[in-house]
Amino acid sequence: MEKMILKTNKRLECINITSRVVQLCQGKIEDGIILLYIPHTTAGIFINENTDPDVVTDFENTLSQIVKSDISYLHSEGNSDAHIKSSIIGSSVSIIVENGRIQLGRWQGIFFAEFDGPRTREVWCKFIPSI
Amino acid sequence: MEKMILKTNKRLECINITSRVVQLCQGKIEDGIILLYIPHTTAGIFINENTDPDVVTDFENTLSQIVKSDISYLHSEGNSDAHIKSSIIGSSVSIIVENGRIQLGRWQGIFFAEFDGPRTREVWCKFIPSI
Amino acid sequence: MEKMILKTNKRLECINITSRVVQLCQGKIEDGIILLYIPHTTAGIFINENTDPDVVTDFENTLSQIVKSDISYLHSEGNSDAHIKSSIIGSSVSIIVENGRIQLGRWQGIFFAEFDGPRTREVWCKFIPSI
Repeated sequence: MEKMILKTNKRLECINITSRVVQLCQGKIEDGIILLYIPHTTAGIFINENTDPDVVTDFENTLSQIVKSDISYLHSEGNSDAHIKSSIIGSSVSIIVENGRIQLGRWQGIFFAEFDGPRTREVWCKFIPSI
Repeated sequence: MEKMILKTNKRLECINITSRVVQLCQGKIEDGIILLYIPHTTAGIFINENTDPDVVTDFENTLSQIVKSDISYLHSEGNSDAHIKSSIIGSSVSIIVENGRIQLGRWQGIFFAEFDGPRTREVWCKFIPSI
Repeated sequence: MEKMILKTNKRLECINITSRVVQLCQGKIEDGIILLYIPHTTAGIFINENTDPDVVTDFENTLSQIVKSDISYLHSEGNSDAHIKSSIIGSSVSIIVENGRIQLGRWQGIFFAEFDGPRTREVWCKFIPSI
């Protein structure tokens, strides 16, 4: 696998990693899929709009309303909300590769999300050829 | 990849695409997985009960309660709720293929979900053989 | 595919299946991915912290607050909340396999979640080699 290193600066932060994934894919496989996997339990990965940064801010604010950080949890480390957000958003995305390039929809970008930063984090990238 | 075209008629609409996916799989691969990928940022895909349509209506109503459309968002296009629903539900599902057929549980169906329609949309279908 | 059998004892119950998946992977493939797929419509699968069981209890409690079981739904079987939880958490996870072993992050475990038990359930496990 390939490993991508990311640094986050806030408690909850989404980072657009689209261009780094596009770059990483160059010269790897002609045809198949790429699995982007997050090996952390307070982080996640998702695909959404690549144009207006307000979309991601709305996502961050709404997710924080759905899973609140300032209520009482059993887990004593103070980051239960981050673990729950991670389980709801998911630990991986799979994307099609054809002609040596990842195939995203016109408006799509790939976003890494840390819910309990700041942290230094990894994204693990695995290519599976179809032939 | 294969592309499936769908038309939605309402703002929020889930379409049962199970039989179309089953048909699409015929004669493709004997053994492996199929990745069903949604290239849109206000849509998603999920697996749920294939029998009672009320299950999907309950899903639509509850998701609209969890992520409300009529509150204030930063993104000015009026569809932030649809982008957020898309990130929560997810952009793809992976299903096992054996003996040339997709392997679903007894009660399972595959549902495309548009959260900001009506739209004409695509589902991208990629086969990855296991051998 | 390989099938893992699980028994749940409560209505909502998460079971840590990490060690069983690790065992199942032995001698299967050297390099690729494993797809863990849930063939049930009131269950799901997710990756989260493998150490403090309170994290999973917090997850169960919060998810039950987000998707309530005691409100009015159209579906008459009384388990609409379980179907909705299943769609939000997701029916499968994909994990990287290298050197014949699944590659999890340091703190990660794999959890099966039943939202309408007690039930006897299956997890379907499919290996896709990368070469």
